[in-house]
Amino acid sequence: MITTAKTVLLLGIVLVSWTDFLATKTESGSNVEYTADAQLKFPTHYREWVYLTSGFDMSYSPAANMPDHHMFDNVFVNPEAYKVFAETGTWPDKTMLVLEVRGAMGKGSINQRGNYQGDAMGVEVHVKDKARFSGNWAFFGFGDEKTAKMIPTTADCYSCHASHAAVDTTFAQFYPTLLPIAKSKATLSPAYLKEAETPAQK
Amino acid sequence: MITTAKTVLLLGIVLVSWTDFLATKTESGSNVEYTADAQLKFPTHYREWVYLTSGFDMSYSPAANMPDHHMFDNVFVNPEAYKVFAETGTWPDKTMLVLEVRGAMGKGSINQRGNYQGDAMGVEVHVKDKARFSGNWAFFGFGDEKTAKMIPTTADCYSCHASHAAVDTTFAQFYPTLLPIAKSKATLSPAYLKEAETPAQK
Repeated sequence: MITTAKTVLLLGIVLVSWTDFLATKTESGSNVEYTADAQLKFPTHYREWVYLTSGFDMSYSPAANMPDHHMFDNVFVNPEAYKVFAETGTWPDKTMLVLEVRGAMGKGSINQRGNYQGDAMGVEVHVKDKARFSGNWAFFGFGDEKTAKMIPTTADCYSCHASHAAVDTTFAQFYPTLLPIAKSKATLSPAYLKEAETPAQK
Repeated sequence: MITTAKTVLLLGIVLVSWTDFLATKTESGSNVEYTADAQLKFPTHYREWVYLTSGFDMSYSPAANMPDHHMFDNVFVNPEAYKVFAETGTWPDKTMLVLEVRGAMGKGSINQRGNYQGDAMGVEVHVKDKARFSGNWAFFGFGDEKTAKMIPTTADCYSCHASHAAVDTTFAQFYPTLLPIAKSKATLSPAYLKEAETPAQK
């Protein structure tokens, strides 16, 4: 039979390990944080979050000019939100999606063709915070700063995401591991389903 | 003062939570596993590991024919190995790097230009296991199978990684968040440093 002293010792060891785990979890978890003047704090550990997809030179506007350089974009989500999506097909409150834009390098080292990723050129964050934002979600753009003001809801990104996003204003149609989950959980938006049914009108 | 009964209850709660954490850790950690006939078991949870980079239509051979379709490749590493690399600039034993190849989609949904990611077409795994492989590392290729035989060491991938890789036979020169760490920790390979100094001879 375990003695009280041994129990307390064991409890102490477990608690220390558990505290370590919680510290790790806080680092890589969502913990959406704002400044006193409602700016979003930069999610420092987003590169350790769950990766969703990358795009190459993507554009939603046929009229936009071709840039003179190639670009990658990488999308990450906080692990807690990813787990909820995997179970339910949609996003919980305090979800943070991070879009990281990187320059594309061509020939270099032993690479002869195609493109690999260079320096980060900017980060955009899409945050779900129902108590704070009237449309549940808000966008923030970061350059080199560690805090960012909310992008005004008059910006095109809000109306475009609201009109075309597959799941809860997010472009899950471009996240290849999440789209099948949303289909199986029947969480695809009516607007997306209608668009997907009528390709000729896109 | 805490009673023995309360201590045991608290210990029970903490142990259950700790067990949950360990289960999670085992799922997303490295835990390299082999079958009895030395095949590597598929790393089921690699999409929850740490993302390193993506390439687009990359090729190391100038003579290779252009394929008739575009391809993405995404690279992931087990979180334990990532943490060690962040601290030391090189890989610990039992590191697993996963290269996932995906087809690239063009116009689709609201995307008008460039490419987004489609279905996975194959996975290649690079494993460091010093007790098992004479060169410390081995490659395994997966299609739809859940186990894979080691790719023979006569394959080009071994000689190419040995000759050109920036860190410990891995192409860290294409991992934009890891290359600065390797530079600062002085873990870049002599072969890579020589190649980087003499671009005209590449």
